[in-house]
Amino acid sequence: MSNQNEYMKFALEQAKMVRGQTSPNPTVGAVIVNEGEVIGVGAHLRAGEAHAEIHALQMAGERARGSTLYVTLEPCQHRGRTGPCTTAIIQANVSQVVIAMLDPNPEMQGKSVKVLQRSGIHVEVGVLEEEARHMNRVYIHWMKTKKPYVTLKMAGSLDGKTATSQGESQWITSPASRSDGHVERKNHDAILVGVETVIQDNPALTSRDPYVQPIRVVLDRNLRIPRSSKLLTDDYPTIIYTEQPSAFETTKQIVTLSKVTPDSVLQDLGNRNITSLLVEGGATIHGAFFTDRVVQRTITYLAPKLIGGVGAHGFIAGSGALQLKDALQVTYECIEHIDGDIKITAIVGEEDVYRHC
Amino acid sequence: MSNQNEYMKFALEQAKMVRGQTSPNPTVGAVIVNEGEVIGVGAHLRAGEAHAEIHALQMAGERARGSTLYVTLEPCQHRGRTGPCTTAIIQANVSQVVIAMLDPNPEMQGKSVKVLQRSGIHVEVGVLEEEARHMNRVYIHWMKTKKPYVTLKMAGSLDGKTATSQGESQWITSPASRSDGHVERKNHDAILVGVETVIQDNPALTSRDPYVQPIRVVLDRNLRIPRSSKLLTDDYPTIIYTEQPSAFETTKQIVTLSKVTPDSVLQDLGNRNITSLLVEGGATIHGAFFTDRVVQRTITYLAPKLIGGVGAHGFIAGSGALQLKDALQVTYECIEHIDGDIKITAIVGEEDVYRHC
Amino acid sequence: MSNQNEYMKFALEQAKMVRGQTSPNPTVGAVIVNEGEVIGVGAHLRAGEAHAEIHALQMAGERARGSTLYVTLEPCQHRGRTGPCTTAIIQANVSQVVIAMLDPNPEMQGKSVKVLQRSGIHVEVGVLEEEARHMNRVYIHWMKTKKPYVTLKMAGSLDGKTATSQGESQWITSPASRSDGHVERKNHDAILVGVETVIQDNPALTSRDPYVQPIRVVLDRNLRIPRSSKLLTDDYPTIIYTEQPSAFETTKQIVTLSKVTPDSVLQDLGNRNITSLLVEGGATIHGAFFTDRVVQRTITYLAPKLIGGVGAHGFIAGSGALQLKDALQVTYECIEHIDGDIKITAIVGEEDVYRHC
Amino acid sequence: MSNQNEYMKFALEQAKMVRGQTSPNPTVGAVIVNEGEVIGVGAHLRAGEAHAEIHALQMAGERARGSTLYVTLEPCQHRGRTGPCTTAIIQANVSQVVIAMLDPNPEMQGKSVKVLQRSGIHVEVGVLEEEARHMNRVYIHWMKTKKPYVTLKMAGSLDGKTATSQGESQWITSPASRSDGHVERKNHDAILVGVETVIQDNPALTSRDPYVQPIRVVLDRNLRIPRSSKLLTDDYPTIIYTEQPSAFETTKQIVTLSKVTPDSVLQDLGNRNITSLLVEGGATIHGAFFTDRVVQRTITYLAPKLIGGVGAHGFIAGSGALQLKDALQVTYECIEHIDGDIKITAIVGEEDVYRHC
Ligand SMILES: [Zn+2]
Ligand SMILES: [Zn+2]
Ligand SMILES: [Zn+2]
Ligand SMILES: [Zn+2]
Repeated sequence: MSNQNEYMKFALEQAKMVRGQTSPNPTVGAVIVNEGEVIGVGAHLRAGEAHAEIHALQMAGERARGSTLYVTLEPCQHRGRTGPCTTAIIQANVSQVVIAMLDPNPEMQGKSVKVLQRSGIHVEVGVLEEEARHMNRVYIHWMKTKKPYVTLKMAGSLDGKTATSQGESQWITSPASRSDGHVERKNHDAILVGVETVIQDNPALTSRDPYVQPIRVVLDRNLRIPRSSKLLTDDYPTIIYTEQPSAFETTKQIVTLSKVTPDSVLQDLGNRNITSLLVEGGATIHGAFFTDRVVQRTITYLAPKLIGGVGAHGFIAGSGALQLKDALQVTYECIEHIDGDIKITAIVGEEDVYRHC
Repeated sequence: MSNQNEYMKFALEQAKMVRGQTSPNPTVGAVIVNEGEVIGVGAHLRAGEAHAEIHALQMAGERARGSTLYVTLEPCQHRGRTGPCTTAIIQANVSQVVIAMLDPNPEMQGKSVKVLQRSGIHVEVGVLEEEARHMNRVYIHWMKTKKPYVTLKMAGSLDGKTATSQGESQWITSPASRSDGHVERKNHDAILVGVETVIQDNPALTSRDPYVQPIRVVLDRNLRIPRSSKLLTDDYPTIIYTEQPSAFETTKQIVTLSKVTPDSVLQDLGNRNITSLLVEGGATIHGAFFTDRVVQRTITYLAPKLIGGVGAHGFIAGSGALQLKDALQVTYECIEHIDGDIKITAIVGEEDVYRHC
Repeated sequence: MSNQNEYMKFALEQAKMVRGQTSPNPTVGAVIVNEGEVIGVGAHLRAGEAHAEIHALQMAGERARGSTLYVTLEPCQHRGRTGPCTTAIIQANVSQVVIAMLDPNPEMQGKSVKVLQRSGIHVEVGVLEEEARHMNRVYIHWMKTKKPYVTLKMAGSLDGKTATSQGESQWITSPASRSDGHVERKNHDAILVGVETVIQDNPALTSRDPYVQPIRVVLDRNLRIPRSSKLLTDDYPTIIYTEQPSAFETTKQIVTLSKVTPDSVLQDLGNRNITSLLVEGGATIHGAFFTDRVVQRTITYLAPKLIGGVGAHGFIAGSGALQLKDALQVTYECIEHIDGDIKITAIVGEEDVYRHC
Repeated sequence: MSNQNEYMKFALEQAKMVRGQTSPNPTVGAVIVNEGEVIGVGAHLRAGEAHAEIHALQMAGERARGSTLYVTLEPCQHRGRTGPCTTAIIQANVSQVVIAMLDPNPEMQGKSVKVLQRSGIHVEVGVLEEEARHMNRVYIHWMKTKKPYVTLKMAGSLDGKTATSQGESQWITSPASRSDGHVERKNHDAILVGVETVIQDNPALTSRDPYVQPIRVVLDRNLRIPRSSKLLTDDYPTIIYTEQPSAFETTKQIVTLSKVTPDSVLQDLGNRNITSLLVEGGATIHGAFFTDRVVQRTITYLAPKLIGGVGAHGFIAGSGALQLKDALQVTYECIEHIDGDIKITAIVGEEDVYRHC
């Protein structure tokens, strides 16, 4: 073990171990090294608990004096139950701090670096930054916009159909693809569907992991959700966005907005610390998110079949792009074979593409 | 060099060198080996010319006596300007014939094997058969059905749109994909479009290879093709299928059928020794081929963009599959990145898939 | 994250981070999981400090109740400054313990498993055991034999020569190979050479890592080591094994044995908690270790040159194997190109080969 | 198929099919292309028979007019039973000739290019030249030096021993390596051993291919070869080099040289059109070739065992390199696992290394 990249890779591995369990906080890992030995490791495990640096400093104890701390994100100055990490680092007499990426919060960005430097600590920034940014791209988006990172999930035939012209839709994609879709759910804080989907399919929208259940979100302008819907009657949390006053008794949350739009909903979800949202449709919902340009990523499952037909449904309803210049540009990130199907992940725009499927 | 597979691989390589230039004949390669030495090689170069076996025997000369002939297709008995290959093989005193695959023509299948065996020649069949069948899958289809092997070419956005709802379609896919589409043209004997495409786009439908130009085919029930169309005025061959009597002077071929359907056209093309047909659209044409189930393969270019919209055009018009059981099942064969686009090749059904992109 | 293998892999990654810094203790990693979340991680950082389980339990705190602990080695019962890990696990109310491999110490093997089970903890053993055994193969050897794991390092020409017949030997291998040899040093607790090498080359035998310097060991039956040798005058530790009484003043350690043999030296080194030994030669020393069959691994650098000559020196002097059945059987583990040279790692015997170079 | 490289690759494939059967001639392949179609292919099959160009022109017939000929070696002007290829090319009205490499014979080099150009043919040289040179490196060496290309074959233990100090040598390497050694024999025109090897082992020195048997060559200064040796009594050709007058009746060839040295033997073999020679040993023979610097390539099989011992035999006897600057520098070309052994192919010097194992 001999260089910064190796130790930062260790710190990133610490962070990757806890991916998905720290929302709305970023995943952060830390490693402390002194005289060629790892003397402390840590990750931020859960929002509200100790930061990665604190765990690593606790493990290092006295030996932290004169050490180098590798941390995947700029240490904090004021948040955290355990007090500012900068203070803890300074008090532990760490000599050098190597940081993968600065705090994405524009108000905080770089401030901790200066605090550390003022205390005579040597600071380096940018080691394995790309990996760190990729790992926290959801968090970065939420921090900058205060709205969740939105992934559109589309599933259909090779020619982009989600149902035949007579409306038959179950099932176009393979069981393996649908199972993969369930796994994707647990990677998100929340899943969103339109009320029409609830009325027609009465889905449970649960993940396969008993411990990791995203919040279900329903857009239901006129509060048409059936009282017997699984989303209302089961034990997991549901939020219903409507323009109507809450008209019935339920343990679920009904949120009345003057106007239910993708943006208004994303704002409210962002305020609730929902950092990532998987939009599962239907086509009208996809159309609304498409039209309002509030999509960061798409996941598309293409089954090996052609359905055809002018009347068959596509992924995205509404008026779509009227001109080609209005199409939503994406960049393909991953293409995987899932059983006989293909899964295509794409990032909106051309930034932040990190092609390690 | 020591075994049958190696020598048959040589014979297949001979055949691959001449791919695309032997239609309507299959591509065939031959290698003759005697006492561990290659003494003759050959390929069938062009319909109407000597068969692969004849070239190889000519090169081998006297040394063919006692040799082993490796040939990728069962030798013929009666066709060929140079007389039956079986006769030439017997007269050359070849001792053993190793054949990759039998003649796909049901009437001929296995007959030459018997003829050779009756002359005391040891015959083996099935060495690298899968490769040989893959290489000649177009020929096998045409030989069995007397109709060309049909490939549907589709190009559009990730969500299966070929134009915006306002009809803008140029260009969705990248220049690299369009260029690849031109290369695909020269792999086919003919290209087919509907007259609507000719009226709207006035395409040249030429390949980029000056020497290899497929026949252009237009479906034009009411003979609406503009007199000034490139397809009528340039120097390359065009066939127009119509239900009308030929109403104007042209150097191109106008074929009047009582009913212009995919099947009637494919029958006529098959009779004209067109073994492979690339159907380039538009959506209505694709719909007709889809509905009549006369598609063997699809090539789909997906540009990294979403167009969306209920009114935007899809790849396949018409009524499509009314029920999921009526969808056209395909099997993904190749997925390639072409510049920023994806190219997906799929085979209809589940047979004959040979995943060597 | 969903299964035992994944979590055990995390635990192994914790251990790999601290490889080389825990001798004579094994490298051990631990991960604690509760309700699908990682709640604690830890590694054993250094002999005499807390064990991996203790670090992980500290991080987990109260949440350890009902959790599953993944640990790469059977927890201890009595060693460790922090008390038996089994007690800590039981007191933390962990529900399940998943262990990669049992304690290699025959007296302790399986005992902790029983202690845990008696407390009602569900225990599983053998998850990623092969990886865990590979990672600790040095420790396992030392624990079983009380002697260090011996690696013979040989460097010469493709034809196995370490010097020309006139004795010229500097340099046959490339700078890159020699540098790699220095890196290998820091992977060992000690390096051994014969006094002849010290007399002729006066080597420093240091690693390139200022913090990780193995102990230098010299076999010097007649105490001929020059007083001005770097091994006597520099600041790093040296042990000299001799059959003579210590005859001069030195800060280094002189150990008098009635008979200096590989085995007597290995026994003494083992007692000093030296778990791994790199034998760098010369050929006479290699011959002694070869003859006494006390070699576990070999590293051979072959430079791209032929030296030839009956009188040129080989890697292993002495009488060698008189019959082929007495040759030292090895199994090739890794072959790497190092600049223009080849580096070949081989394991004595056929066990414990884990071909992940 | 669209460019020069592709067609030259076809020509190289023609040549590769006949590798090993054209000695002392080079392997040559040719492809003729006209208007985008392959119209003729050919390879030089055997010394004394038609050249590649002639076969290809025969296949092309009339269509050669205006074509492009791709050939892996500069066409000949005067050799060949079929007359100068340049004449045939000119008479066939070929328009363009693309050549991979010029004639390595310094007297002929470039002459045919000029002849063709003077006839108005456009000539290009150097397309895939590296591949062509690699394919014919044996021929090039022989043409330049009039001596065979010499490969030293060495087989022993990882530490370079071919026998224990008591002389036991059968078998160190695995059956798979020895079988691979037999395959190497058929890639050479001749195999050479010293008479000591014949006396001790009475080897057959045959290849496994009944049709391809290299000439066996014995260096036997004092004509000590036992009359009952397989090399004298079996049906395959043997040449014995001696300094004695031929003293006994034999069907084999006994060649008396005033001095039997590697160089005198290589000169004589070169004159006999032996282009490649595999020197199988023993160590004294290897030593002689090493000392005289008449080695072009080495093949080394290293068995996974250590034999050790000052008295054990090495690959290369004699005095070897006295100083390191006299060592024979090689470049590793290929390293392969053969069963449990390693096979290392190396090229003397640093030129002509083409690392496609
Ligand atoms: Zn913090
Ligand atoms: Zn024929
Ligand atoms: Zn413990
Ligand atoms: Zn010639």
